[in-house]
Amino acid sequence: MDTEVKQILEAVQSGTLSVEEALLKIKKEPFLDLGFANIDFHRKVRQGVAEVIYGAGKTPEQIVAIANAMREKTADTIFITRMVSEKAQEVLKELPQMSYHETARIGILGEIPKPSGVGKVLVLTGGTSDIPVAEEAALTAEILGNEVVRHYDVGVAGLHRLLAHIDDIMEATVIIAIAGMEGALASVVGGMADCPVIAVPTSVGYGAAFEGMAALLSMLNSCASGVSVVNIDNGFGAGYMASQINHVTKKQGE
Amino acid sequence: MDTEVKQILEAVQSGTLSVEEALLKIKKEPFLDLGFANIDFHRKVRQGVAEVIYGAGKTPEQIVAIANAMREKTADTIFITRMVSEKAQEVLKELPQMSYHETARIGILGEIPKPSGVGKVLVLTGGTSDIPVAEEAALTAEILGNEVVRHYDVGVAGLHRLLAHIDDIMEATVIIAIAGMEGALASVVGGMADCPVIAVPTSVGYGAAFEGMAALLSMLNSCASGVSVVNIDNGFGAGYMASQINHVTKKQGE
Amino acid sequence: MDTEVKQILEAVQSGTLSVEEALLKIKKEPFLDLGFANIDFHRKVRQGVAEVIYGAGKTPEQIVAIANAMREKTADTIFITRMVSEKAQEVLKELPQMSYHETARIGILGEIPKPSGVGKVLVLTGGTSDIPVAEEAALTAEILGNEVVRHYDVGVAGLHRLLAHIDDIMEATVIIAIAGMEGALASVVGGMADCPVIAVPTSVGYGAAFEGMAALLSMLNSCASGVSVVNIDNGFGAGYMASQINHVTKKQGE
Amino acid sequence: MDTEVKQILEAVQSGTLSVEEALLKIKKEPFLDLGFANIDFHRKVRQGVAEVIYGAGKTPEQIVAIANAMREKTADTIFITRMVSEKAQEVLKELPQMSYHETARIGILGEIPKPSGVGKVLVLTGGTSDIPVAEEAALTAEILGNEVVRHYDVGVAGLHRLLAHIDDIMEATVIIAIAGMEGALASVVGGMADCPVIAVPTSVGYGAAFEGMAALLSMLNSCASGVSVVNIDNGFGAGYMASQINHVTKKQGE
Amino acid sequence: MDTEVKQILEAVQSGTLSVEEALLKIKKEPFLDLGFANIDFHRKVRQGVAEVIYGAGKTPEQIVAIANAMREKTADTIFITRMVSEKAQEVLKELPQMSYHETARIGILGEIPKPSGVGKVLVLTGGTSDIPVAEEAALTAEILGNEVVRHYDVGVAGLHRLLAHIDDIMEATVIIAIAGMEGALASVVGGMADCPVIAVPTSVGYGAAFEGMAALLSMLNSCASGVSVVNIDNGFGAGYMASQINHVTKKQGE
Amino acid sequence: MDTEVKQILEAVQSGTLSVEEALLKIKKEPFLDLGFANIDFHRKVRQGVAEVIYGAGKTPEQIVAIANAMREKTADTIFITRMVSEKAQEVLKELPQMSYHETARIGILGEIPKPSGVGKVLVLTGGTSDIPVAEEAALTAEILGNEVVRHYDVGVAGLHRLLAHIDDIMEATVIIAIAGMEGALASVVGGMADCPVIAVPTSVGYGAAFEGMAALLSMLNSCASGVSVVNIDNGFGAGYMASQINHVTKKQGE
Amino acid sequence: MDTEVKQILEAVQSGTLSVEEALLKIKKEPFLDLGFANIDFHRKVRQGVAEVIYGAGKTPEQIVAIANAMREKTADTIFITRMVSEKAQEVLKELPQMSYHETARIGILGEIPKPSGVGKVLVLTGGTSDIPVAEEAALTAEILGNEVVRHYDVGVAGLHRLLAHIDDIMEATVIIAIAGMEGALASVVGGMADCPVIAVPTSVGYGAAFEGMAALLSMLNSCASGVSVVNIDNGFGAGYMASQINHVTKKQGE
Amino acid sequence: MDTEVKQILEAVQSGTLSVEEALLKIKKEPFLDLGFANIDFHRKVRQGVAEVIYGAGKTPEQIVAIANAMREKTADTIFITRMVSEKAQEVLKELPQMSYHETARIGILGEIPKPSGVGKVLVLTGGTSDIPVAEEAALTAEILGNEVVRHYDVGVAGLHRLLAHIDDIMEATVIIAIAGMEGALASVVGGMADCPVIAVPTSVGYGAAFEGMAALLSMLNSCASGVSVVNIDNGFGAGYMASQINHVTKKQGE
Repeated sequence: MDTEVKQILEAVQSGTLSVEEALLKIKKEPFLDLGFANIDFHRKVRQGVAEVIYGAGKTPEQIVAIANAMREKTADTIFITRMVSEKAQEVLKELPQMSYHETARIGILGEIPKPSGVGKVLVLTGGTSDIPVAEEAALTAEILGNEVVRHYDVGVAGLHRLLAHIDDIMEATVIIAIAGMEGALASVVGGMADCPVIAVPTSVGYGAAFEGMAALLSMLNSCASGVSVVNIDNGFGAGYMASQINHVTKKQGE
Repeated sequence: MDTEVKQILEAVQSGTLSVEEALLKIKKEPFLDLGFANIDFHRKVRQGVAEVIYGAGKTPEQIVAIANAMREKTADTIFITRMVSEKAQEVLKELPQMSYHETARIGILGEIPKPSGVGKVLVLTGGTSDIPVAEEAALTAEILGNEVVRHYDVGVAGLHRLLAHIDDIMEATVIIAIAGMEGALASVVGGMADCPVIAVPTSVGYGAAFEGMAALLSMLNSCASGVSVVNIDNGFGAGYMASQINHVTKKQGE
Repeated sequence: MDTEVKQILEAVQSGTLSVEEALLKIKKEPFLDLGFANIDFHRKVRQGVAEVIYGAGKTPEQIVAIANAMREKTADTIFITRMVSEKAQEVLKELPQMSYHETARIGILGEIPKPSGVGKVLVLTGGTSDIPVAEEAALTAEILGNEVVRHYDVGVAGLHRLLAHIDDIMEATVIIAIAGMEGALASVVGGMADCPVIAVPTSVGYGAAFEGMAALLSMLNSCASGVSVVNIDNGFGAGYMASQINHVTKKQGE
Repeated sequence: MDTEVKQILEAVQSGTLSVEEALLKIKKEPFLDLGFANIDFHRKVRQGVAEVIYGAGKTPEQIVAIANAMREKTADTIFITRMVSEKAQEVLKELPQMSYHETARIGILGEIPKPSGVGKVLVLTGGTSDIPVAEEAALTAEILGNEVVRHYDVGVAGLHRLLAHIDDIMEATVIIAIAGMEGALASVVGGMADCPVIAVPTSVGYGAAFEGMAALLSMLNSCASGVSVVNIDNGFGAGYMASQINHVTKKQGE
Repeated sequence: MDTEVKQILEAVQSGTLSVEEALLKIKKEPFLDLGFANIDFHRKVRQGVAEVIYGAGKTPEQIVAIANAMREKTADTIFITRMVSEKAQEVLKELPQMSYHETARIGILGEIPKPSGVGKVLVLTGGTSDIPVAEEAALTAEILGNEVVRHYDVGVAGLHRLLAHIDDIMEATVIIAIAGMEGALASVVGGMADCPVIAVPTSVGYGAAFEGMAALLSMLNSCASGVSVVNIDNGFGAGYMASQINHVTKKQGE
Repeated sequence: MDTEVKQILEAVQSGTLSVEEALLKIKKEPFLDLGFANIDFHRKVRQGVAEVIYGAGKTPEQIVAIANAMREKTADTIFITRMVSEKAQEVLKELPQMSYHETARIGILGEIPKPSGVGKVLVLTGGTSDIPVAEEAALTAEILGNEVVRHYDVGVAGLHRLLAHIDDIMEATVIIAIAGMEGALASVVGGMADCPVIAVPTSVGYGAAFEGMAALLSMLNSCASGVSVVNIDNGFGAGYMASQINHVTKKQGE
Repeated sequence: MDTEVKQILEAVQSGTLSVEEALLKIKKEPFLDLGFANIDFHRKVRQGVAEVIYGAGKTPEQIVAIANAMREKTADTIFITRMVSEKAQEVLKELPQMSYHETARIGILGEIPKPSGVGKVLVLTGGTSDIPVAEEAALTAEILGNEVVRHYDVGVAGLHRLLAHIDDIMEATVIIAIAGMEGALASVVGGMADCPVIAVPTSVGYGAAFEGMAALLSMLNSCASGVSVVNIDNGFGAGYMASQINHVTKKQGE
Repeated sequence: MDTEVKQILEAVQSGTLSVEEALLKIKKEPFLDLGFANIDFHRKVRQGVAEVIYGAGKTPEQIVAIANAMREKTADTIFITRMVSEKAQEVLKELPQMSYHETARIGILGEIPKPSGVGKVLVLTGGTSDIPVAEEAALTAEILGNEVVRHYDVGVAGLHRLLAHIDDIMEATVIIAIAGMEGALASVVGGMADCPVIAVPTSVGYGAAFEGMAALLSMLNSCASGVSVVNIDNGFGAGYMASQINHVTKKQGE
């Protein structure tokens, strides 16, 4: 910022810039000249992650156009989330090389990279109805370069099912605990594990489940330490967060 | 009802009652003559339980007056719930024979009867802050003639603490699971036990616990079968319900 | 647990196990060796109940597969809840021996057993729109071995309709009170009965009924003792809880 | 309005008013000239009710000043609502002729008039904690010229207590049903009575009573016809509404 | 139905009916069991109003069956509320004499009686979208024997539209104020009128209207005295309550 | 419409119109009764803006009828909001001169006027899904005589996108900030700008977005000064408010 | 602060200040680190308003320290909001020149400037309890250079009180409508005025007012155009927004 | 505690401890029953962190007793959270070696260890009122072995304050973003950073902030990826989670 303001001041001093014009230029300083313009490029350089397109609320045409524009600028893997089957069929007509994962509602352009994280991401669900959210989380983590272990339908009402996987729980680097209804899975897993747990409430349930509100509140109030929460049904967010945790040292190594 | 209406009709027939008067009398029938007048007495005969006075919102004077009135009519044990320490001290001046249990906020006039239920009532809490509600439940159950087993601070974040009591869980006739925060205790216990579980959400917690709302919703959405819920902090209600369950066969034996 | 830890220690002592390996083994102890592994088997032996499949959110193919897997392992009656008519028609193609109860949305494989409980389960509804939930509760209780008495449309706005059944209310071992709108049925019945009352709020109503929220809150705040509540529209949960209460002595008798 | 606009137009025609001035005057017409200025006076003439001062949020000085100003303009009875005891003591120093009713939190200047309504106003409460709201309602109705019958603590958990007053319920012209907790009283009374029922939810209760929310929702969803609801704890509003209903024919007779 | 019981009594008085036969007739009165609904005929003894069938949640077959059963017992007008057009077409095939009012969603069997109330019921709406609820209220009031005046789309954002009807507001015996969105109509009318005002919030609006919640809360908090509220969209309830108020003296005159 | 009343007045002044005829013309102004809607023409006297018809909840026939009635009375531009495509196609059959803007769901009869405001209205959105609401706001402002600058998809998660438009933010007279999900755009823009900011929460998002509730609360709690909020998805309201702000001096100039 | 930067620039232009010294002076501008608060002086460059300190949650010592730091940098008026009386007394010991306005809870250091806005800001309240919020709004607007007109206690339940001020409503440049309870004032004023209306819900009321929630929802759903809303009780925000609207042309004039 | 068990094992290996003695020592590990709290020592076997005592809801005596029991078993640092100043003074009488941090409400027994994590934990707050929560988070992280960088009062309404710390944001391993009111800080930081962001809503604010609900919803709906949320005001939880993320590789290294 110094240089630029200095130049403005020198121009005022030399009379080539009026006081009024200089005042206007300086008014804009706080936002223009803190090195911020380079942030986005910076981010790209450091993260090197796959590119993501949020598919909900976009037409197939928009998705194809954005994907094509991205492919001109990068060789990275591109993936499209929240894309229901009908929409995917339309996109596939234009991008036949896309692989589509129906349960996860994710389309992928390019290869899923080799795992590059510290350890394993463990994805657990309370019931079978939580699987679509879990697949969104698991596939997101895989695309972002993580080894993923899945155990579904291990809810707390049948505790032995969960305890059967205690080795995986103990060995995980980060755990994604996905559950609807009362969402107790997060607390039980949080109490057993000694790694970060990302809790994902789902809208599974009825009545006083209030579209995931009960599970959300339950998870936010977890009596176990080391549990944090993302939005209801936000499998992508959990997978992304898990990947960031699992790559924490990567950044430091650069 | 027959007899009474018949008498009315006979009076009309005999001319001792006008049609208008008869019409008025019959209008009142649905509520007056279905054997209902005897219900309260009936209830007393069959239940034989201790008498309860709800102490919240009553002055010490009112409590003393009600208790004295009851004692003139019954030799049963009388107990006063939701009576804070200050109020109890005032009541004790007039009723020195009352025993006061501060944690449970309960005062008792008379003896705690011998257990008369089918089996044991097990009272569990998630944390130490839930103990006042638990004591209200446990003491209520004891006064109503139940053997009570207590295990406190066995929340799901330290699952082995709960598992350490698996024998008592398996042997209980009815379990009262008391927890604040995320209320996951009810689901975990409900999944382990094969007896009715009464869940009591407590107002323990802060922030998104919303004064017990999170635990309440969590318990209502329990993925375990055989769990039902009472109001937030309602230890008395849980103890009373547990006693009714534990005495189910008593009634049939009469 | 002693034995296993002892063996680990002996192996360390004898030099056949390194300290590091021993440390890892001991870390897993709290969950592996508290007798918990036997819980599920235990539960099966003691409960001997019919098997249930929660049909909502499962495809007809999944239901058939689960049912067939169960039938290979048990001769018990199997029932599928929350199965709408269209789904049932698909399942019936593969499992023609299934009997389907449309109002209750329940399919049954096998016989409904003879009543084995202490007494009678009484199922009451406030209105006619509550009947599907009531049938789910009643049929669940019957499949689990209970004698069930039904009285529907006996809401409190016409009190004499309810009072007409006062004998059944007095004789019941457990009552299921089902109502939407303001849910006052639970309190009135709770005040009349001297047995446990399980209240089921329903999503019947409109406007400020808020999909069952009004009835739920009303029932949780019941001024009558001996009332506990299950989730909105949860007929199955009420029937299951009622059965557990009605079989309380059975377990003790073994 | 005609006359005034006509005068404006005539002034324009005659040249004594410019078009611009006329335009401005006409702009204000819709609100100024619909006879509305006389409404307030009108209201006074027709209602002839006592004057009311809402005491909450006003200082003793403000209350005294307003009361004195009113007394200069009217000989009617004046009453002050929502005035807690401490405030009343201050007001009494300046207005020693005021009679103060502590339970109802109402102060009265002048006489309570003779009943002038069609029939009787019946005030019922579910519990003893509802009495302050009930007294506010009852006293308000009395001050406004109604005969009031009170029956307190007749909640639905002890139905025979309510049925004991069936004569008064049948004979009432309007009923005020006051209850906290689950608020079922309104529905039960609404189903028995054939007169308008005004339901008043109270903030009595705890936990899921949510400061009167449960009772409010319950009353709004009453399955009985002829029930309408006022704000939580709004005894004054119920008493005022009841008086208006009880004086319906008075107005027509004039 | 007074007439009916009176006729029975007169027959007994005159000796043309034996006491036993009369007893049997009267005993059958309170309930007429159709398997799915206990129709409350006894209520009519007390109230003498037209009969109402709540059409929502009932099949056309059920409506026809209930209506036919009613017609065998009474010559009164019968009306069916909350009956959408498709359902009405089905009912009309069996009951061609029914007149159907599509906007109000009400079907009527029999004549609309002459007005018998004290004065006029005024029905106001804030907007045009509130009209279906208003017609349900207005038609209900007419069927129950009231003269009704309607003024629609007179919301407070165009105050002069409301003020234009100030005469009708001043002359009404009872006013029904119907509005969605912010529901301010009730307060403004409540401040102008000197008769009871029944406020009906509607689910008209979007976003923070929360399906009528905003209007409901607004109306409950009305700063005007003499306003009470019914459930969201409950036109029938408002019309029924208005009729009860408008007939207050009738009952006393008997 | 000023023009119209002014013309009447001028005709009176010039003697070409009698006072009586003028009176009649002006009296007819405030109301034009179409049976279903009292169109408020008088408002135009004061405001002089284009006419708006709220299209939601109106049939195509009603829209055409209201539009035609308006056109007989005024030469101003008329626009219809919240008119979905299907409805617009029906209206176009009768009003082929209407131009329809599908994204904004607005139909326009007449010309969009030249900008007459103080400066520019800047419309910003957080994402692409907010564009329909933004177009409703922008087009509304344009029809009401404002120069509008649009920048869409400049949400705070990519701050540089927003900062790229800092010149437009600094130069705007009023800013409309539209965002769903967490609605943070309003606070960030409010902190940067020194002009009024109108925040519009949208129902974009899922789960804990609660149909716009999260964004609404966020915007109401903005830590930036100079931010006010309209209803969820209320693009029209924001555009209208912005126009009023942008024309503040206009009124004073008259 | 424009002046200050301008002076620096002028000094550079005239040669009395070197570029380096000027650069240093300007660099120090944006932040003044007091350890506990980064005071944003740079904002003033853009806005040129009086300085505000949000007093809630700050100790008297912190307030004094921030105020003194500000005074070293500027000669502008400084005002402290949300400062209760006790805190103000402490601050006055250190800053005796501060004038304190108790009702508005605002302290002022320096002169209230001459009005510099386009027209008048009109502040209206529904009741007397809303006055503290109104005074906060009004005084804020005055300090920021606006002429303010106040009319308090003009709620819609007594419409003539509001209509009595129709001239001020018609002449205002911007209106602040403040009300608790049902908040209808905003809609009624919005329908009458043709200038922007800023609605402020207050936490005045009880029961279903839910601490201002009812008024907030009501105002957000206003059926009148040209109404926007700020947070509950946010008088400062309304006054600030009003000032920005009233100065819209000022900025353009520079 | 790894050390402790390891020492036992090494003693067995070296023959200085018999198997039986070792078994007894290890068996005593998991539980230490103090009557009111089952302290979970076994957890330490897996996690090796400092010991934490949740101070809220515990008496000074209980805290001292638990702390002393812990100190007998471990040499690790012990810290007590949510301990207000008064309580801390009592505890200090018994444990004078405790250092007490008033803003963070944390007491520490033992040394704060050297940072052992991957990188730095950055703690940011929106305002000064958020500092207590921030200090709880920061101190927790420090006690658990993390280097912590603090920047407070950098809310989004003054964006340049936040941008001034862009280097720290870019270099952090994990960021804790703490804000009340609208909670927009999390989204803005989430969009700038390429590391995991833990968002902590605070109960700072008033009105529609609803005790932190607005910030909570805002953060859950963050449009930035890599943001997860803990309970309102849960500084400890955020610090703990951050530490786990910052030590992710540590565990793998073993």
